[in-house]
Amino acid sequence: MVTLRLREIATTVGGELSGDGEVNIGAVRSIHEAGPGDVTFLLNKNYEKFLSSTQASAVIVPLDVDRAAIAGKNAVIVKDASLAYAQVSRLFEDRRGGCGISPLAFISNTANISQSASIFPYVYIDDGAVVGDEVVVYPFTYVGREVTIDAGSLIYPNVTLYDRVMLGKRVIIHAGAVLGADGFGYVWDGSQHQKIAQLGVLRIEDDVEIGANTCIDRASLDETVVRKGTKIDNLVMIGHNVSIGRNSIIVSQVGIAGSTSVGENVVLGGKVGVADHVAIGNRVRAAGGTGIHKSVPDDSTIAGSPHLPHREWLRQQWYLKKLPALFERLTKIEEELHLRDHNDRD
Amino acid sequence: MVTLRLREIATTVGGELSGDGEVNIGAVRSIHEAGPGDVTFLLNKNYEKFLSSTQASAVIVPLDVDRAAIAGKNAVIVKDASLAYAQVSRLFEDRRGGCGISPLAFISNTANISQSASIFPYVYIDDGAVVGDEVVVYPFTYVGREVTIDAGSLIYPNVTLYDRVMLGKRVIIHAGAVLGADGFGYVWDGSQHQKIAQLGVLRIEDDVEIGANTCIDRASLDETVVRKGTKIDNLVMIGHNVSIGRNSIIVSQVGIAGSTSVGENVVLGGKVGVADHVAIGNRVRAAGGTGIHKSVPDDSTIAGSPHLPHREWLRQQWYLKKLPALFERLTKIEEELHLRDHNDRD
Amino acid sequence: MVTLRLREIATTVGGELSGDGEVNIGAVRSIHEAGPGDVTFLLNKNYEKFLSSTQASAVIVPLDVDRAAIAGKNAVIVKDASLAYAQVSRLFEDRRGGCGISPLAFISNTANISQSASIFPYVYIDDGAVVGDEVVVYPFTYVGREVTIDAGSLIYPNVTLYDRVMLGKRVIIHAGAVLGADGFGYVWDGSQHQKIAQLGVLRIEDDVEIGANTCIDRASLDETVVRKGTKIDNLVMIGHNVSIGRNSIIVSQVGIAGSTSVGENVVLGGKVGVADHVAIGNRVRAAGGTGIHKSVPDDSTIAGSPHLPHREWLRQQWYLKKLPALFERLTKIEEELHLRDHNDRD
Repeated sequence: MVTLRLREIATTVGGELSGDGEVNIGAVRSIHEAGPGDVTFLLNKNYEKFLSSTQASAVIVPLDVDRAAIAGKNAVIVKDASLAYAQVSRLFEDRRGGCGISPLAFISNTANISQSASIFPYVYIDDGAVVGDEVVVYPFTYVGREVTIDAGSLIYPNVTLYDRVMLGKRVIIHAGAVLGADGFGYVWDGSQHQKIAQLGVLRIEDDVEIGANTCIDRASLDETVVRKGTKIDNLVMIGHNVSIGRNSIIVSQVGIAGSTSVGENVVLGGKVGVADHVAIGNRVRAAGGTGIHKSVPDDSTIAGSPHLPHREWLRQQWYLKKLPALFERLTKIEEELHLRDHNDRD
Repeated sequence: MVTLRLREIATTVGGELSGDGEVNIGAVRSIHEAGPGDVTFLLNKNYEKFLSSTQASAVIVPLDVDRAAIAGKNAVIVKDASLAYAQVSRLFEDRRGGCGISPLAFISNTANISQSASIFPYVYIDDGAVVGDEVVVYPFTYVGREVTIDAGSLIYPNVTLYDRVMLGKRVIIHAGAVLGADGFGYVWDGSQHQKIAQLGVLRIEDDVEIGANTCIDRASLDETVVRKGTKIDNLVMIGHNVSIGRNSIIVSQVGIAGSTSVGENVVLGGKVGVADHVAIGNRVRAAGGTGIHKSVPDDSTIAGSPHLPHREWLRQQWYLKKLPALFERLTKIEEELHLRDHNDRD
Repeated sequence: MVTLRLREIATTVGGELSGDGEVNIGAVRSIHEAGPGDVTFLLNKNYEKFLSSTQASAVIVPLDVDRAAIAGKNAVIVKDASLAYAQVSRLFEDRRGGCGISPLAFISNTANISQSASIFPYVYIDDGAVVGDEVVVYPFTYVGREVTIDAGSLIYPNVTLYDRVMLGKRVIIHAGAVLGADGFGYVWDGSQHQKIAQLGVLRIEDDVEIGANTCIDRASLDETVVRKGTKIDNLVMIGHNVSIGRNSIIVSQVGIAGSTSVGENVVLGGKVGVADHVAIGNRVRAAGGTGIHKSVPDDSTIAGSPHLPHREWLRQQWYLKKLPALFERLTKIEEELHLRDHNDRD
């Protein structure tokens, strides 16, 4: 367990210290749960009222905090409390490493493993694989032939990396993820589905994180690619030949069908489905559950299934709620015009 | 394989025996498939007509069965045939145990494993983990640091339990489930997504069952919790800081986003999606595919996406089906009022 | 790596050779990426214009290709270019085999493994399992008691086959799939959910392919079955007692609830959800995201949630888009009839 002085934390986040900088901090906790030895964060203005009662040894607060609320407290005042929270949380992370290469791992003679990598027992590394510096590979992970894992990457247990998958630097792959499986492609020959062998690769660039049990298929030809800094949640499905741009956010249970391209800084909410062969522009934001059936221009915010611009979708929802009243109004007109009898309502 | 006398089965279910209590029963089969040595169940009144032709050695039937239909049969008459079926099915279950601790498992010196636990080959148990009495852990399961697994729990193959996950008594975790992975949290710093380290835990209470390839993330701070007796199906995603109450039923492919709370005795049908930071009350029932975007009061039955009270949703569906007729009626009025020409229909 | 002469490829696909049949081909690439030593395919008429500039050593083209476009090229002219692509892709597939039975695999004394099977290190094969000729089983796969895997099947890493699962010939199971887990069945006894032990089996027929992290539960009684030639994508959920007919296509993230039957040559698009106890006929086609709540007759094409015949669904979408205009028209009529004031619009 890590212990830090508040002064060190203030330095990390570039904040202004108020109170005792020598107090020891051993954990981050929420404002209600924090006790002595903990630091907490004010991330939401509505929680300011809890500052007086929190038992935390220190609080990290934004510039616009009510200064009276932190009087007598040990505090660090920062420009962006959320960003400070991310930075400080990582100081207390208990990350593995320095375990060496277990003799209980199975490593092909033709694999090339950095001496600074940590390879747990019961890892299987196949022919020609390359594992870089400071990489950590947990048990029950299969590293296929000619897979490359670049420096600083972290692979949790039970991950499968099919042959020739390429992972960049500082990539994180959560447990159970399957990268580089066969894309789903067949041709009907009149009596059965003939399999198209999937001869392409999967490439994951630097700083990508991939969630638990997520599946990303390799390309039929050429490559499937996820670009630098993109973050993918659990149980996501990404089909063959898909390309995803930089710094996008793909929330849980999203499915993206084959040959679709997704731009940079895109956010796809939970359970979004995207058809094959469409192009989603940069900075597109899709609400949870959106069904994207055709290409979407840059900077769109969309919702619904089939998808609509978000504003249009809201309007459609508004009209849907008015349908009963509309039927009432119509019936009234018909009665007025004697097109319908008062006793004849359906 | 288990063999029981019908008399013993009658005692287990607290039913009234009719016919030969000494007949040997070796299996449970459906009314059409059952043969000599099998017991079958009448769970659906519509199947009463098949009682005469079933080859089963015995039938278990509800109190309101037509007594003529079981004349000459070996039968057990019970108050609740479905409950009797559950009880009897478990008599014939072929559950593993008593295998001891395999020398081919990797167990940290600082882990604490009950002598009555069954640990298969190729299990990895990390530092400080505690495994209770009669626990069974199948191959390729990773038990992280300081994980606790309480008595009688059953962990199938290829499961990943991240550090500090807590499992109660008699918990069942199916193959491929990933418990306690990082919640999905980042802060954009203007040029990249900064990861928020996930410092909280995941706690699973007694008698919870978790399906294959389901993912439940640990909290960012504090805890994610699934309370006593809740049953979760396959391929479900539960985000960080979620809390799920007692005895709820979460069907396959449901996704629950971060910081949402779900009450007791809730039923979420297949593919339900729940937004983050909402509160679902007790005894709420959501139809398959419901998209829950805001909090739901106790005892609601809901459907649709965005969700509506079930009755309102049915009404909306009814109006949707009437839309073509409504357009017809409107056009007719316009013609009547000479607002539109007869040749001008769209 | 395989190298073939173009003449051999022409023979495999039964095509007409044009140009140099002796040219060596070492890979298949897309028309834009192909270079010397590669063969490429014209699968889409719109790409014909790229034939002149492709660097590929050979092209495979359909009968109706513009002959001028392949003048001077090495080409094979075929009736069905897609089918030829599937056939040729498989010539270049780099499939594993002939690895023998690893001494690092754990194999029960009572299991029966063909001498021609390839069993990787860290495979666990339990009592009474039978593994046929030329079967390949990758690391971290659990083969339960009395499981049978017939000749030529291929099981990728981290797969779990629960007890008594039956796999036919040439079955492919991708990484992380869980076959034969407990169906999701409980009976409420007034104070808790009583588990129904799942006593049935799961049977997968010949030539079925099952995607990564897909889950198919075994039956409560009797069997869950997937028939010959059906192809199932990643992250699909198939409940207990489901039966799926021959040569169907089940796309990613589909969920099929318990006791439902699906016919032959059915196509269920991505994220389709199917309720329990319904019957889907033969040759049904469901668009991505369809919610199937009741039985569907043979040869239907459906969409929407709840599902409608595709044509009706298109019509409904058309009317939904017209709703704003409809409200306009209605208001105008009301004004005309003095049922509403011009200043009273909502």
